[in-house]
Parts: sequence; structure tokens; C-alpha cells
Amino acid sequence: MAALWVEDGVYDVDSGYLAGHGELAAMVGSDQHQAFIARGCGHFLTPAHITVEHDHAIAAGHSLLVLRERDAFLIHRVTAHHWPLTRTPDGWRVRRRTSRILDGDVFAHRLLAAGVRGEQPHRPAGADDRAARTAAAGRPGRAS
Amino acid sequence: MAALWVEDGVYDVDSGYLAGHGELAAMVGSDQHQAFIARGCGHFLTPAHITVEHDHAIAAGHSLLVLRERDAFLIHRVTAHHWPLTRTPDGWRVRRRTSRILDGDVFAHRLLAAGVRGEQPHRPAGADDRAARTAAAGRPGRAS
Amino acid sequence: MAALWVEDGVYDVDSGYLAGHGELAAMVGSDQHQAFIARGCGHFLTPAHITVEHDHAIAAGHSLLVLRERDAFLIHRVTAHHWPLTRTPDGWRVRRRTSRILDGDVFAHRLLAAGVRGEQPHRPAGADDRAARTAAAGRPGRAS
Repeated sequence: MAALWVEDGVYDVDSGYLAGHGELAAMVGSDQHQAFIARGCGHFLTPAHITVEHDHAIAAGHSLLVLRERDAFLIHRVTAHHWPLTRTPDGWRVRRRTSRILDGDVFAHRLLAAGVRGEQPHRPAGADDRAARTAAAGRPGRAS
Repeated sequence: MAALWVEDGVYDVDSGYLAGHGELAAMVGSDQHQAFIARGCGHFLTPAHITVEHDHAIAAGHSLLVLRERDAFLIHRVTAHHWPLTRTPDGWRVRRRTSRILDGDVFAHRLLAAGVRGEQPHRPAGADDRAARTAAAGRPGRAS
Repeated sequence: MAALWVEDGVYDVDSGYLAGHGELAAMVGSDQHQAFIARGCGHFLTPAHITVEHDHAIAAGHSLLVLRERDAFLIHRVTAHHWPLTRTPDGWRVRRRTSRILDGDVFAHRLLAAGVRGEQPHRPAGADDRAARTAAAGRPGRAS
């Protein structure tokens, strides 16, 4: 999965902030991620709205994360995504994934509104800062 | 959103009947629509089955509307859609969106069956009439 | 629906094992399948990951099956799918659909992992045998 990102690519989700292939690979191998897979889950993404300009692109869309709970499958979260991409000699790669839960949060709406215009979202103060983002993560019941 | 429709395009959903850009834009700005966004929601559409004939097309598919309820995301409805489209100098535009909840309703099934054959559905008496459609709308718990 | 398969195509789902157009058509007409439609349901598939090699292809993806329960729509199951396809004079046709519920089952994971590499999954002993598969089917609450 990490190989879909550029080497110093960023994963900026309300549940956590990761940068670079090493951290991305560690997340996929983490106990929480592997527990989701063992329990039963599915992540459904809308087809992305993509704006391509030369070797850069912005993709936007939203997703549904479903987790199994005993005999039921429940929707864990609905999430907005904004993806700047770069064309490399090996194909398109993700520079950053910014994702926020769609619970009325204004920044989540900005990700979609800016994304479909092919623009960067206006980030709230501290939103691009690893320390602030890490402190904001870890709310209960929130995973990408 | 209204700009995706032709100027006199129709939005014919069990929750309401709208015609023309003015009514479409008013719906998007309505308290109910804005309340869905503020509360947290996501609308997931299947890739459409599209039949193109010269400058006309018929698209069909179904969708899942998810709304947040406190800490949970619940499926509000599953809906069948039938979209006749026209190619204009500005690109493809929607002539009509006919949508019905998939609760066993025979007309909802006709939308899909006719849609994948690239045909218009056979409409029940009154189904194309604004007054009848408006009277049928407004059932509790039903939104597009 | 049966016409999407080659004449001797196989439908290998945890809920049942079918082979050939006759059995596929009978399933679609079955009381259970028709009861799902009458009650209200929707099946949502991710865009498939497809590997094409000459006249053969492997597609993989997962799906969400939603069923209406009185006034609610609930997720009945999340399922992994692996589809080998063949190009025929009439277009692409399904040779086999192998589907397993995503409840932690290792074979379900293999369907996706092999599928995105364009490969056949390693099948557990008996997994390709109609008698064993039929005996394993019919668990409560399991339908494709």
C-alpha cells in the first residue's frame, strides 16, 4: 500500500498523521489495522472526481467504512478525501491523502469543495502540523 | 448542482418533484438538505449503466444514502435512478432524474429494467403530473 | 443474468454452488432471490481491479449487500469476489465467480490478494468440489 505514495508522501486522517513509506507500512501492519481485517471489513470509495494538469492531479471523493460486529455489518464512518497526485516515471503516486469524517466538520466539506475544483483546501491553523494533528487523533471510534 | 440539468430539467423523486434551475437550486439550499450536510451524510452511487444514441443517453443505477445518527452512520434509503441525458454545446446535461426508493415498489424496478435497456420506463397514471407527485411526496423518513 | 456467464460458467459463493446457465437462471428466479427484490435490496460493488492478458482477464473487488428491514436498510453482508473472464465472439463472459463473506475467512482474503495480482487463488481442499461446497452452504443469514 505504501508504494502508492511518493517516498515522502503524507497520510493525514483524523485518526492519525503519517509521513513516508516507513510509517505507512507500519500502519498497515499495525494491530488495529490487522484486527479490522481479521474481524471483517470493507472500504467503499466513490469514483473520484479528478482534475489533471500536466504531471499533477487532484482527486476528491468520499468513502464508507463497514466493520463486522458479531452477525451484523455496521457503518463505522463516512469520510471525505482529498488526494494531490504526481506523475512519476513509475506512474501516478499519492503526495498526500487528507481525510476527515463527515460529521458536519467544516474542513471535511472544504476537502470536497476544493477537491472538485482541483484546488488545495484552506487548512485551519495547525492542520498541517504533525504535533497538532497527532494530538487531535485518537478520538474513540475513529479510524480511517 | 442545478447546472448539471438542462434549464427546464426535472427532478422527480418520491420525496419531491422539482422543475427548472430555480427549484433545483432552492432544494440544495433548503433547510432539510443543509441539515443533512451539517449532520453528516454520504450518498454512494453505483457506476451507471449508460446507453448513448447520438446526442441522447439513458443512464441507470442505484444509490445508498447514509446519514449520521449521533455516533452511528445509518442507511437512510436505497434508491433506483433513471436519467435521460442530452448532449448540449456545454456538455452532457440531465433532462430528468426519476428516482424511487427500493422498497419493493414496482415502478422503482421499472426504472432500472428500462434504464439498462436504454428505454423510458412505463409510468403509472399520474406519475408524470406535478400535482399528483407532490401529493405523494412528504412521506415520513423519505428523502433523496 | 445467466447470459453474462459462459455456458458452463460457475457461481461459487458461500451461499451456494451453481454451474451452467440453467442453474444460474433458476437461482435468479428462486423464491429467496425474488423475495429479496420484493422486500427491497441493493447490491453495491467496488469498481473492479482488472488484469487483462489477451482473451483472458481476472477481476477482483468487494461488495455490500443491503436489505430492507421494515423501515430500515441494513447491511446484510460484505463479500470478496474473484472473477476469471474470457473474451468470446459475443464479448467478455464470466468463467467463474468465487465469492466469500469478509468475516475474517482466510480464503476470502486470498480471493482479493490473488485477484489484484491477476492470479487464481489457492483453493482449500474441497473448495472446488460441488458436494463439499453444497454441504458448506445454507448457513443461516448467508446469501450472495
